Amino acid sequence: MNTITCEILSTGTEIVQGLYPDTNAQMLSRRLKDLGIPVQYHTAVGDNKDTLAVALKIAHNRSNVVVMTGGLGPTEDDLTREVVSRVYNCGLKKDAQAVKMICEHFTRRRIPMPESNLIQAMVPEGCIPLYNFMGTAPGFIIHEKEKNKTIITLPGPQREWIPMFDGPVTEFLMAWFPTGILFETLVLRTINVPESKINDQISTLFGAIPGVTLGLLAKPGKVDIRITANASTREETVDLLQSARKKILACIDSKSVYAEKEDATIEETVARLLVNQRLTVSVAESCTGGLVGKRLTDIPGSSAYFKEGIIAYSNEAKIKYLGVREQILNQYGAVSGEVASEMASGMKRLSGADYAVSITGIAGPSGGTPAKPVGLVYFGLATKDYVSTRERRFTGDREMIRERAADFALDILRRACMN
Amino acid sequence: MNTITCEILSTGTEIVQGLYPDTNAQMLSRRLKDLGIPVQYHTAVGDNKDTLAVALKIAHNRSNVVVMTGGLGPTEDDLTREVVSRVYNCGLKKDAQAVKMICEHFTRRRIPMPESNLIQAMVPEGCIPLYNFMGTAPGFIIHEKEKNKTIITLPGPQREWIPMFDGPVTEFLMAWFPTGILFETLVLRTINVPESKINDQISTLFGAIPGVTLGLLAKPGKVDIRITANASTREETVDLLQSARKKILACIDSKSVYAEKEDATIEETVARLLVNQRLTVSVAESCTGGLVGKRLTDIPGSSAYFKEGIIAYSNEAKIKYLGVREQILNQYGAVSGEVASEMASGMKRLSGADYAVSITGIAGPSGGTPAKPVGLVYFGLATKDYVSTRERRFTGDREMIRERAADFALDILRRACMN
Repeated sequence: MNTITCEILSTGTEIVQGLYPDTNAQMLSRRLKDLGIPVQYHTAVGDNKDTLAVALKIAHNRSNVVVMTGGLGPTEDDLTREVVSRVYNCGLKKDAQAVKMICEHFTRRRIPMPESNLIQAMVPEGCIPLYNFMGTAPGFIIHEKEKNKTIITLPGPQREWIPMFDGPVTEFLMAWFPTGILFETLVLRTINVPESKINDQISTLFGAIPGVTLGLLAKPGKVDIRITANASTREETVDLLQSARKKILACIDSKSVYAEKEDATIEETVARLLVNQRLTVSVAESCTGGLVGKRLTDIPGSSAYFKEGIIAYSNEAKIKYLGVREQILNQYGAVSGEVASEMASGMKRLSGADYAVSITGIAGPSGGTPAKPVGLVYFGLATKDYVSTRERRFTGDREMIRERAADFALDILRRACMN
Repeated sequence: MNTITCEILSTGTEIVQGLYPDTNAQMLSRRLKDLGIPVQYHTAVGDNKDTLAVALKIAHNRSNVVVMTGGLGPTEDDLTREVVSRVYNCGLKKDAQAVKMICEHFTRRRIPMPESNLIQAMVPEGCIPLYNFMGTAPGFIIHEKEKNKTIITLPGPQREWIPMFDGPVTEFLMAWFPTGILFETLVLRTINVPESKINDQISTLFGAIPGVTLGLLAKPGKVDIRITANASTREETVDLLQSARKKILACIDSKSVYAEKEDATIEETVARLLVNQRLTVSVAESCTGGLVGKRLTDIPGSSAYFKEGIIAYSNEAKIKYLGVREQILNQYGAVSGEVASEMASGMKRLSGADYAVSITGIAGPSGGTPAKPVGLVYFGLATKDYVSTRERRFTGDREMIRERAADFALDILRRACMN
């Protein structure tokens, strides 16, 4: 039975003013749940000493584990160090290793370090420092063994706190707050199937598998099927997950599953397939303006499969670089299967890549007509054997239409690699 | 002087489990701030009677206005009615109008109403009901006049609570908690100046301008200077903002300010400058792989200034399309000012655009050497008059290096347009 209580305290005036949703609290909750430590409260407060102290005292009193983010920067409104030292009644001292790392951070970038930055090297006496390899401010853990209480203080930026949490903090929590209960989540990420269809296909499985919880999380064009299992050993949890996974895959179109991991992207899958098969790809983009190239090169090592692309936004560029015939442009219009087809063949010819994908469409908000509305997008795929085209109509604003068009182009590549 | 304290309490296990960020709290904060009622705390709790009661008691004790969302549905884990009635020590009664509206809701959809749904018509005795025209559960307001305290309880779905808040709740708040104070925020968004430097430059202004609060919000490579003014008339607030703005601009490098609006992007500024001056731009991207093209075409109407780009990821592509000389590539390496310069000139020549920008660098995580580390990026700018190059060293992971390189390239364009 898990009796550890845990809560998250986020600081930042921008949160209580409503500038951003509190995604740090969200991401921390997921991680803590995976460690078997469910979170009971989220609190957010502005950069104000008194409200922060009130919130921290309440959290310290009622929970075993308090995880705090933000307020560790070098400026006037970074108050966490000071308030923690007040509430936990401990002094602050300069940490030599942190000083060294902050100085190196500036040296590496060849910019002089403002003196005020060294305040970030101050940490509570007796704490466990959490060194920052992605920024300047170290985090820290204060562990009150006799009270079975801990506060974990992390910097606000995700690229800074995530490595700290996934490394030393996780190690610390597993050593001092072992729960004996293991939660594991498996995510089946699907694309281009409506949520209601997936819901119908797996509805008989909801609540029907002991120890397993199913959930659907829908984003435009994509649905995640979330399988969470809890048991007392890792083998048992994994067995539960795998048997639930099999049952689900038997009910849905398994080809629509583009990844089986939290936050895994379609471009990661495409990259893996291309690398494994030693294939290369090139892109000819109109309405996406470079987005597909950007996503294909988001992946480390992308130079193995991606060599080049043309952003052919204007008709002239389509003719000049890709050899689209002017007559075809005039006859069918730039947003047409015919032009998508010529863009893909032209790109394949120019690049010599194994695959060339093309995208031409109307991202809006203007430029639509009754015959060719905003959201209409054509795709081309040229391989050594064939050139194919697809037509889709997306809804949403410019940003969503472009994201969905890029998703679809990447999915065309994924399916081509699977054949 | 505003002495009303306000906080938001969100209920929902999905929030503390980290499935979604708490966007209700975010949207409510923005609305309350616009009414002159700044929010001091956000709290989120799961669907659990005890933790909810703890959180509600704390909120009730310390704040004048508590706004609560969620937990008003018909199921077992909808606990708000019961817990509010316990904490505020009041009975629940069936509201006849709510019963009528819930029944009509089902009649309209021609589906039979499960009996359990009528529990949603229960509201605290003496409350002001908030009828729901978009769903079934009514919200309610309990107003303790003698204590100058109010709880506003709203359903969770945004399409249900937004009309309630923007209608009767706003009316109620303006009648009972008139602040007579107007808050306005102006944001100076700066790029390529360290946070600590800006902090040093404006440190004497913090807390030194009556009626004005200053804050810094730092993202990699960018710092927002947030100026919030409060006064009793709109003219006064605007005057305060403008005078604070002037004082700040006198202390910092005003050219580093790329926008003066919440959420405004650097590409929006670049687009506006290009359109106003009827200039066009083309891009030659290596390590950013299409990201600069993508961001330039994020803006509706981008075809006015953006025609084309080349994603020249490989050396071969740099030679083939942009005419970079092989000898230069061999002598200086692909990541060099010399190659950036030839990429920009080549792109300018090919496209005939007024400006061509180029980017070549090492985004990592691999590919770095002691002489050319990960994060080293060269930029080229070709105009009708000159070709210039810049060198930068960025820190962070691949994604951050690419984002910062794209920011920097867009900033080169912005500054070129300002000359």
